[in-house]
Amino acid sequence: MPEEQDHGRRTAAQGSRIDTYIDRYAARAAGMVASEIRALFAVASRPEVVSLAGGMPYVTALPLDAVGELVADLVARRGTVALQYGSAQGDPHLREQICDFMRLEGIDAAPDDVVVTVGSQQALDLITRIFIDPGDVVLAEGPSYVGALGTFAAYQASVVHVDMDDEGLIPEVLAETIASLDRAGRRIKFLYTVPTFQNPAGVTLSAARRHQVLEICRRAGVLVVEDNPYGLLGFDGEPMRALRADDPEGVVYLGSFSKTLAPGFRVGWALAPHAVRDKLVLALESAVLSHSSFTQLAVGQYLATQPWREQIKAFRELYRERRDTLLGALEALMPPGCSWTRPAGGFFVWLTLPEGLDSKAMLPRAVAERVAFVPGTGFYADAAGVRNMRLSYCYPEPERIREGVRRLAGVVQQDLLLRDTFGTGSVRAHGGVDTPGPDVT
Amino acid sequence: MPEEQDHGRRTAAQGSRIDTYIDRYAARAAGMVASEIRALFAVASRPEVVSLAGGMPYVTALPLDAVGELVADLVARRGTVALQYGSAQGDPHLREQICDFMRLEGIDAAPDDVVVTVGSQQALDLITRIFIDPGDVVLAEGPSYVGALGTFAAYQASVVHVDMDDEGLIPEVLAETIASLDRAGRRIKFLYTVPTFQNPAGVTLSAARRHQVLEICRRAGVLVVEDNPYGLLGFDGEPMRALRADDPEGVVYLGSFSKTLAPGFRVGWALAPHAVRDKLVLALESAVLSHSSFTQLAVGQYLATQPWREQIKAFRELYRERRDTLLGALEALMPPGCSWTRPAGGFFVWLTLPEGLDSKAMLPRAVAERVAFVPGTGFYADAAGVRNMRLSYCYPEPERIREGVRRLAGVVQQDLLLRDTFGTGSVRAHGGVDTPGPDVT
Repeated sequence: MPEEQDHGRRTAAQGSRIDTYIDRYAARAAGMVASEIRALFAVASRPEVVSLAGGMPYVTALPLDAVGELVADLVARRGTVALQYGSAQGDPHLREQICDFMRLEGIDAAPDDVVVTVGSQQALDLITRIFIDPGDVVLAEGPSYVGALGTFAAYQASVVHVDMDDEGLIPEVLAETIASLDRAGRRIKFLYTVPTFQNPAGVTLSAARRHQVLEICRRAGVLVVEDNPYGLLGFDGEPMRALRADDPEGVVYLGSFSKTLAPGFRVGWALAPHAVRDKLVLALESAVLSHSSFTQLAVGQYLATQPWREQIKAFRELYRERRDTLLGALEALMPPGCSWTRPAGGFFVWLTLPEGLDSKAMLPRAVAERVAFVPGTGFYADAAGVRNMRLSYCYPEPERIREGVRRLAGVVQQDLLLRDTFGTGSVRAHGGVDTPGPDVT
Repeated sequence: MPEEQDHGRRTAAQGSRIDTYIDRYAARAAGMVASEIRALFAVASRPEVVSLAGGMPYVTALPLDAVGELVADLVARRGTVALQYGSAQGDPHLREQICDFMRLEGIDAAPDDVVVTVGSQQALDLITRIFIDPGDVVLAEGPSYVGALGTFAAYQASVVHVDMDDEGLIPEVLAETIASLDRAGRRIKFLYTVPTFQNPAGVTLSAARRHQVLEICRRAGVLVVEDNPYGLLGFDGEPMRALRADDPEGVVYLGSFSKTLAPGFRVGWALAPHAVRDKLVLALESAVLSHSSFTQLAVGQYLATQPWREQIKAFRELYRERRDTLLGALEALMPPGCSWTRPAGGFFVWLTLPEGLDSKAMLPRAVAERVAFVPGTGFYADAAGVRNMRLSYCYPEPERIREGVRRLAGVVQQDLLLRDTFGTGSVRAHGGVDTPGPDVT
């Protein structure tokens, strides 16, 4: 039949019908399945759709002229270094700058304990790679960052969620969960937490609880993996003190320039106890040989020559206005029975729908009404999150946020009407893990 | 005792003495041990040492002015795209350009089957990730690329080497090896091969044998992973036809701009059968979310605006001169009993020492004499390669290459004298896998 098609296309089409390698993949590949909602997000990226789904920072606010000049200058002055292979651990000068950067959150660290990674996502991948055997337990907030859940699944970890409230992880629940897993003979490898302006819940672990969480983990011998991409994007007062600041040997800290500068460079890092850092460097080397010298030096040059503190302040003000807009619109427009979190920083609001509604079933209707969000189920490794959705305010302009909420409120209203008329079956969906892709994490 | 040290340093020092996480790593981390020769390579990077160890391309030959201009122009025109997250599969336009690039080696492919990776090293990592369960067999040339062996070890693959001669992999040995593994009930997942200007042996699989190797693997149901970073850097005539050109469904092709442009961007790719490509994209997403938009667009801009074919030609001429210099110096200076390969392209010569000598034991003495190489044992997963070394001619200027060989010949001469006086025990070392780090792969 496909005689007239060109060769490459014919091959591709054949391949998509029959996977001749199906019985040869590794066991870990079984979990690598594209989400059913992925196609919807392709539609959601059309300009007429207001996307409250994406976690993309508003890079339009960056001083593009200055960035253009500094990369040109970098090639002129240090081109043969920027274009060459670098060390697996990362550029030494950038690692010093990263230590200065972390000092804003109370962290006192040596550049030698920092590993520069391809976004903090790679740090997460490498930490999982060196610690997780199939079946090992990772503790994570419920809900948790979708990209982390994808990585844990790729290494066949067993994720056990720990409940949060408005002050973040609940220490008593954490202690009980650890005790019950210990009794069951399970191997807990680490607690994965986004303590500040959490993705997706938008809540922050309170200062008092930080000490409790560290103490519980220390006593139980559980490593803490602190993922902190949003820590400097708080809307009030000074940055929170990082967990790592109070426990250098018990915490691996993951940082990123994706939200404070730009994700397009893919520069993140891990700060780890020395022996763990050794393993991370070797793991990084086998994964990518070394990170891009070019983007590392570009970030270093940006930090050295640009007013980056003022830029972060500008980002904070921009995101605060959008957070206020989203919260105001939700307050004004959402039907009774909906509730949501009130983030003090970061990018996300976590919304809970009235009893009987299902955010994933709602998504196609919402996209048809030109508004998108991420259904809550994607943020859990189990079946939870059906009534939840993540709304992000980082990327759309304020008037678009308001319009998006107006459309969303209409869809929720319709679903409530359906529910009240035909029962909950009419608004429910079922399905597995939803990994929506990099632009909406 | 260390009261007066600063906090970060004290932590680092403590950590280096006792690894409190030692009993908590994953089984796969057991293989992640730094090579004993790593420290030597740190010394070898001093300017007074002639390094015939490094596989670093000579980026000084690039038109830095033009590269500086194009990255500045990229930020000015497409800054908000270059600085933002991209898709996990990679920039669509770059994937088209990659298809044009591969056409030079007879490959007819669709951009949809290409995944852009963080160097081809990441492609290798992801392929291993989706195919290898612990204990699965990977077939590889003996010797094979050290970075690949590190990746295979990280996924607990069992590497079985297949002998080469001056025409590359020996088809009969390949067929026998597969048959014997089949009889033993072992699961062979793929053949990993660098068919053109092989790293480290410098040999090239002949055209006649390419068909035989493909046919043997097709009949045995063994996937071929063709790693081809040096294919366009041949010194005579037209580029070889890639294995992938003749078997789109049986070959995963790995390519890279590290040697034809610059490694500092870390832009490589995999071209894979469609179903495998799907898995690669999901694996990449869980590993790094997405590649750097900035470096992908920079490479795309370079290919679109610069005379890259002429640049590759300039690289070819530069490396040919250095190859000639190295071969001439070896011919003139090495003691009788040494033999070596004569590469028709790429970066490397593989040298075999006389009976009874040991290249790894020789390395400290060589570095003391201000010349460095990579001992042969690093390129085997088993104990082979004791009498071999890899000499690379890509980075040092010709007169430095000549001086390096003069120094090396002196060290070999000394070792021969020792051997003849005190026996082989005096010049032998023992030890495991040697992974020398990213700058010498």
